[in-house]
Amino acid sequence: MSAYHPLNEKEAIEIALTLEGVFAPGAKLVSREIGDGNLNLVFHISDTQSSQSIILKQALPYAKVVGESWPLTLDRARIESEALILEGELAPGLVPKVYKYDAELALTVMEDLSDHVIMRQGLISNNRYPLFAEHISTFLAQTLFFTSDLGMNQQSKKLRVRDFINPELCKITEDLIFDDPYKDAETNNFEEVIRDEAQALWGDGSLHFEVALLREKFLTHAQALLHGDLHTGSIFIKSDSTKIIDPEFAYYGPMGFDIGAIIANLLLNYSSREHWNSDAASTDEYRTYLLETIRDIWTKFEAKFRVLWAEHCEDSLAKSAPGYLDDYLRRVLQDTIGFAGCKMVRRIVGLAHVADIDKITDASTREQAQRLALSIGKSLIRLNRRAASIEELIEKAQSSISVLKA
Amino acid sequence: MSAYHPLNEKEAIEIALTLEGVFAPGAKLVSREIGDGNLNLVFHISDTQSSQSIILKQALPYAKVVGESWPLTLDRARIESEALILEGELAPGLVPKVYKYDAELALTVMEDLSDHVIMRQGLISNNRYPLFAEHISTFLAQTLFFTSDLGMNQQSKKLRVRDFINPELCKITEDLIFDDPYKDAETNNFEEVIRDEAQALWGDGSLHFEVALLREKFLTHAQALLHGDLHTGSIFIKSDSTKIIDPEFAYYGPMGFDIGAIIANLLLNYSSREHWNSDAASTDEYRTYLLETIRDIWTKFEAKFRVLWAEHCEDSLAKSAPGYLDDYLRRVLQDTIGFAGCKMVRRIVGLAHVADIDKITDASTREQAQRLALSIGKSLIRLNRRAASIEELIEKAQSSISVLKA
Repeated sequence: MSAYHPLNEKEAIEIALTLEGVFAPGAKLVSREIGDGNLNLVFHISDTQSSQSIILKQALPYAKVVGESWPLTLDRARIESEALILEGELAPGLVPKVYKYDAELALTVMEDLSDHVIMRQGLISNNRYPLFAEHISTFLAQTLFFTSDLGMNQQSKKLRVRDFINPELCKITEDLIFDDPYKDAETNNFEEVIRDEAQALWGDGSLHFEVALLREKFLTHAQALLHGDLHTGSIFIKSDSTKIIDPEFAYYGPMGFDIGAIIANLLLNYSSREHWNSDAASTDEYRTYLLETIRDIWTKFEAKFRVLWAEHCEDSLAKSAPGYLDDYLRRVLQDTIGFAGCKMVRRIVGLAHVADIDKITDASTREQAQRLALSIGKSLIRLNRRAASIEELIEKAQSSISVLKA
Repeated sequence: MSAYHPLNEKEAIEIALTLEGVFAPGAKLVSREIGDGNLNLVFHISDTQSSQSIILKQALPYAKVVGESWPLTLDRARIESEALILEGELAPGLVPKVYKYDAELALTVMEDLSDHVIMRQGLISNNRYPLFAEHISTFLAQTLFFTSDLGMNQQSKKLRVRDFINPELCKITEDLIFDDPYKDAETNNFEEVIRDEAQALWGDGSLHFEVALLREKFLTHAQALLHGDLHTGSIFIKSDSTKIIDPEFAYYGPMGFDIGAIIANLLLNYSSREHWNSDAASTDEYRTYLLETIRDIWTKFEAKFRVLWAEHCEDSLAKSAPGYLDDYLRRVLQDTIGFAGCKMVRRIVGLAHVADIDKITDASTREQAQRLALSIGKSLIRLNRRAASIEELIEKAQSSISVLKA
């Protein structure tokens, strides 16, 4: 079975039975293919007698995007599997356990998280997750610090950079986030009613300048091993547990790209609240919850990063240089704000959207949410290099609402 | 002969005879081992009947530094050979031709440049090289632009970053340039008479801050494929020809590190002129020549880089963003100035020195040269992030002399 081919359900069960210590000997297993078939096959394998279940995720050698299929390296399965294993070591309990990785089959066997929900859906359903900021800030501080030149041997880090060179997946980000939304690209995907917004983006030279600087950082700044696609659709959650999944975009890049991704997706939900909440008061309340979560994510990330630095910094010159850590964290914050802005803009005008906004049924409410997200996104991009505090980001999110309502 | 072992002269000649199109059939070859035996064997092979000659350079699996030997990867021979070939494509005529690379033997066979002199020796001998700025600026503009995300396919660039991951050689730079001179490290090597200068470096927090930022750039900023060790000892020169050799430190790093290296070495020579010139007038004249060369290097580099950008820029967003190229070049200039400063400081206080200064026979003149080099170096480090023009660097070199004389 070892030569690469897409598995069928019978084969998936056979593989599951070979795992040691997962299912009881002679267990009766059933398989359900639950992937969307675009990038991966995802088999949910469960024991009909016990509650035991696992996931087999197999990469497909192509991606289906806008109906077309293009070839995509199976090496992304290796990258995903190695990133998951490493993240699990650095942030125990915050990613699914990996039971097995088969390079030939581009197959990762991992913990089943069916008792969690996808966080994007949880937010759309008006759930609150009081432990989320604590969990995600731990994930961010641990994975970013300990894969950077501050927190690991600087020669080993270079070998890790090499292992996570990821051109094909990075290209998706470079095109869809840092290029296409700023020109009249075929891949762009926006509603006709906001064509004025798209055209304004295409002609905004000072915005292009800021995005070009952020794009350059994405291309050149090998600061830490990123998840690379840390939106609320890459997070499984329930009240007491957070699990980060799908790190197939992992590569060495700027820390702020991961932190900005999660903040952007909370702000995209923030922009959509008029639809999901039943009245103005609950809309405001939920928005306040989201902004507090964002503030907590940054504040807790920063506090944890400072503790790791104090205890584990491997760079003696950086450690002894007065003000270096403050300056480092200020730059991470600025990147976070800039990348958050880029991630918001692309979800409105670019190829891939988010359900938080696309599923708003009333056209006028949807348009308003799109304009709000763009307004916040652009203001964050413009703010990035001047920012000194997360409060400035929060203020932009709040003031964009007043401006649109005026 | 293919398993790795250090070659003897007989074997070197045998290999030379197998090269196609280099020596006449049946040629009588003689070999001379001319390496310093610290890092590499270097065989000069010549035909006793014709003027034809070549160089065989074989990496040794260790480095001798301060009497000790430490193991060093033979992979540096691959990196050197691949870098030479690539530089030769991008900057034809400015590096030695490579006739053959043998991975097993860690051996590169290349053009003999015995009709050139090492530039450091040429400057010490008061020679002037009116074409040097033209040549080196072409080398810098062509190799840095066309290996960056501006001048090559951005996915191919990532694969090239991977090919040039170079942990061991980078560690030498990280330790000897960006760490040891700023603390009381065992590897430091300075004359007792300037202990006050060394101690001032160790306690200078604001300087540590600037060096830590430059160190961070060296560690994380994968901007272009660098030569990585571009001092005047890595340049063979004669009046009409410049050849850059020894790129075994090549890796993806900040452009300013290469440009700063060459400028630093011109400024180290600048600091030593009282000894090499016969009187004050010729000292001043030669210094003026060196500063004009530095100005020309930057000015020509910038002009050529702008032409390459206009004709070959592969990044459409960067290209369309108003002011992006100006900002990019301003940052390269700032890095150049900062790295030049670091490279000067380390040659006075750190492990490896330069003959320009060490060979000054009079102790007081030598001390003065060392203090001048440190003064310029530190002022460049402090200047780096504020600089907007190469004239500011030149002004620092000039004013440091007046301050020391006062």
